Amino acid sequence: MNRNFQVNLGYQVVNWRVRMINLYDFELSGSCYKIRLFLNIPGVEYAAESVDFVHKEHKTEKYTALNPFGELPIFEDGDTRLRDAQAILVYLAKKYDRSNQWFPDDAESMGKIMQWLSTGGGEIMNAAGARLVKILDYPLDLAKLQADARRVFKIMDAHLATREWLELGHPTIADIACFPYTALAWQGDIDLAEYPNVRRWLVRFRAMDRFIAMPGVE
Amino acid sequence: MNRNFQVNLGYQVVNWRVRMINLYDFELSGSCYKIRLFLNIPGVEYAAESVDFVHKEHKTEKYTALNPFGELPIFEDGDTRLRDAQAILVYLAKKYDRSNQWFPDDAESMGKIMQWLSTGGGEIMNAAGARLVKILDYPLDLAKLQADARRVFKIMDAHLATREWLELGHPTIADIACFPYTALAWQGDIDLAEYPNVRRWLVRFRAMDRFIAMPGVE
Repeated sequence: MNRNFQVNLGYQVVNWRVRMINLYDFELSGSCYKIRLFLNIPGVEYAAESVDFVHKEHKTEKYTALNPFGELPIFEDGDTRLRDAQAILVYLAKKYDRSNQWFPDDAESMGKIMQWLSTGGGEIMNAAGARLVKILDYPLDLAKLQADARRVFKIMDAHLATREWLELGHPTIADIACFPYTALAWQGDIDLAEYPNVRRWLVRFRAMDRFIAMPGVE
Repeated sequence: MNRNFQVNLGYQVVNWRVRMINLYDFELSGSCYKIRLFLNIPGVEYAAESVDFVHKEHKTEKYTALNPFGELPIFEDGDTRLRDAQAILVYLAKKYDRSNQWFPDDAESMGKIMQWLSTGGGEIMNAAGARLVKILDYPLDLAKLQADARRVFKIMDAHLATREWLELGHPTIADIACFPYTALAWQGDIDLAEYPNVRRWLVRFRAMDRFIAMPGVE
């Protein structure tokens, strides 16, 4: 959003408008963590507003007015408001990544990275679901979620057997989108021991410059 | 893929390599239809290879070697191979859309469109699931799929109350990603009568230049 300021100088009233960057955030959400991680890389300053996910504050009218899907994160940069972690990553890469490394703007790079944005917001969310069952008692089918999550980790493991990063030979927003719920999989009782290439990728990711942690991925 | 040709001219053997565009396709798949639709707009020529989805040919080794996720569509443009309909749309927009209209390359447009790519590959797939139950007897929870699909159609309906297209005031790949399984929702016994703005958007979409149909959306 934009915030309006007014100062009365006595002889004159001055109004100005400041472009604010806001993240509606929940510390234990892996999806919000994607955004915090990626904002930290170019060092974009922002205000985080903590939303009480545990008590479903994100489903209240205040937040469904901002995102009718009733999900976090929600992101605002001046007048631009975005929902969906992957959409926010695309926006941030285009807006703030001067290296053109995280989402390079040629068709092949974009297509390849986009595959993993779909996986990060799709199949890997089975691991997020398993975690919700284990840590917040969500009434979901744990065995199915774990099995579906293992299926994608197996595919990632084969993919990473010959690669250090998911695409392009260097870190991109593909890695950002897939890292959090893979690193947190153990909290849904999903053991990554069978996926040594995935585990090496997690270690590599954590060693990245400007990496920040969240509880559970230290 | 690329195809190698050889011609023996008598005095000389000539080899050349032709960049081929291939779509591994199933006519009744709404996800494959997204790609056929969008290839038709700039008139990109391609070869379609029909895969027998009904008999799960896409789960056989021949196709899981091309896409380990075992899903259609799979797309090849020369040496570039991509899975996931939304990733393919991003690639095609960047590669073949000279109008820069379908996925404009500024951060705000990309972020806004990307939100609906996530929805098209995510929540709207509940309608695809309901359709699989009804037309192919998939053993899935029909009532839940229908309820989850209705939830997203309700959100889209509110969004489209003040808009002709999902974002930017003109057709983009956001519309392409969301159109097929919305138009096919009736095949999963989901009635769109309650969502008049969605229905008007479907009509508008079908009236687009270079629109092509698939069975069920005529």
